Amino acid sequence: MRIRKKPWAAKYIQDHADYIVTNPQNWTGRWQERFTKTQSLDVEIGAGKGQFIIQMAKQHPEINYIGVELQESVIATALRRFMTDPLPNLQFVLTDGADLDEFFHPNEIEKIFLNFSDPWPKKRHAKRRLTSPRFLKTYQTVLAHDGQIEFKTDNRGLFEYSLVTMNNFPMHFDEVSLDLHESPENETNIETEYEEKFSPNGPIYKLVVHFNS
Amino acid sequence: MRIRKKPWAAKYIQDHADYIVTNPQNWTGRWQERFTKTQSLDVEIGAGKGQFIIQMAKQHPEINYIGVELQESVIATALRRFMTDPLPNLQFVLTDGADLDEFFHPNEIEKIFLNFSDPWPKKRHAKRRLTSPRFLKTYQTVLAHDGQIEFKTDNRGLFEYSLVTMNNFPMHFDEVSLDLHESPENETNIETEYEEKFSPNGPIYKLVVHFNS
Repeated sequence: MRIRKKPWAAKYIQDHADYIVTNPQNWTGRWQERFTKTQSLDVEIGAGKGQFIIQMAKQHPEINYIGVELQESVIATALRRFMTDPLPNLQFVLTDGADLDEFFHPNEIEKIFLNFSDPWPKKRHAKRRLTSPRFLKTYQTVLAHDGQIEFKTDNRGLFEYSLVTMNNFPMHFDEVSLDLHESPENETNIETEYEEKFSPNGPIYKLVVHFNS
Repeated sequence: MRIRKKPWAAKYIQDHADYIVTNPQNWTGRWQERFTKTQSLDVEIGAGKGQFIIQMAKQHPEINYIGVELQESVIATALRRFMTDPLPNLQFVLTDGADLDEFFHPNEIEKIFLNFSDPWPKKRHAKRRLTSPRFLKTYQTVLAHDGQIEFKTDNRGLFEYSLVTMNNFPMHFDEVSLDLHESPENETNIETEYEEKFSPNGPIYKLVVHFNS
């Protein structure tokens, strides 16, 4: 996705430092201090414009959420949307989600959401896919023992690749859907902006997995 | 599928006993005697009218094939098709493929093909699906140490179920395709009759797996 540069973004982020972190390394081991309650922590990697994570935080006040996003202009939009009705259980982090283990402690996260991450379709870029073995290793470190990953994509190639890498890792499959919007699980599905826009073009795939059997 | 009873089937099978077995228990440990060469053995469970297994046998004279089918009228059609140009490396077996370990020795089979098997869509019938854990256990017994299962279906529910049961067993995924006919792997794909007929209705799913990593 080509990102339109938003001149207001940097200042907006700076002005709302209570809800967004730009120096995540400084918060290692102290994330719960940023919330009003200490409770289970779920993280979305690639939170985009925030539609999914904001909705999740609304529906689940008993869970603390962190939305990680790499693009300043994109997360600024998420933040602005969030500020119309801020919640005490959602924080944003402007950083590269790939380095999760640099700012989360082992076992600190209950659930990781990977929504429509970059498919990196060329074989030589496979290592950059967020479901490649080196990233899975990172997730394994920061996830709680019974923690799960929920992964959604509309990209067939990425989903095929992920089924294989996650199986081979090995990870344990809890749930697979090859057409989420036609499945019973869709009743509780919260759509991302991307999902809403592109799902008419083909099926949405979903996989829920954990590391330990 | 409702099967039309074919009055000629029983006698036709009886008359071609060199190419079809109706008492598989009697051949336990002696399957190679039915072929002109002793070589790697692959088995299709649910061979239907034989299009897939006959084509495979033609393309791979270096492999011995057995097509197992439960329905007398269906396998009689396969046999009749086969008899127009019989091959020394293909045999049919009229029996329930579910009981593979009753007539194959441990490690005897190199590859098992499961093509478009009955989806048994009702949850209470899940145990009857040919990719349910008890059947996987049977396949594990009769397959060689590095033996594979190649599984194709157009049934989304059955494929989702199978991804989970095979992962959980645990089995090791070698290859996943969520739209086989659009994949590079399709170049070497041999279609079953069912696949030819129904693939315009939706994607064909394929999974290649083995037991030991």
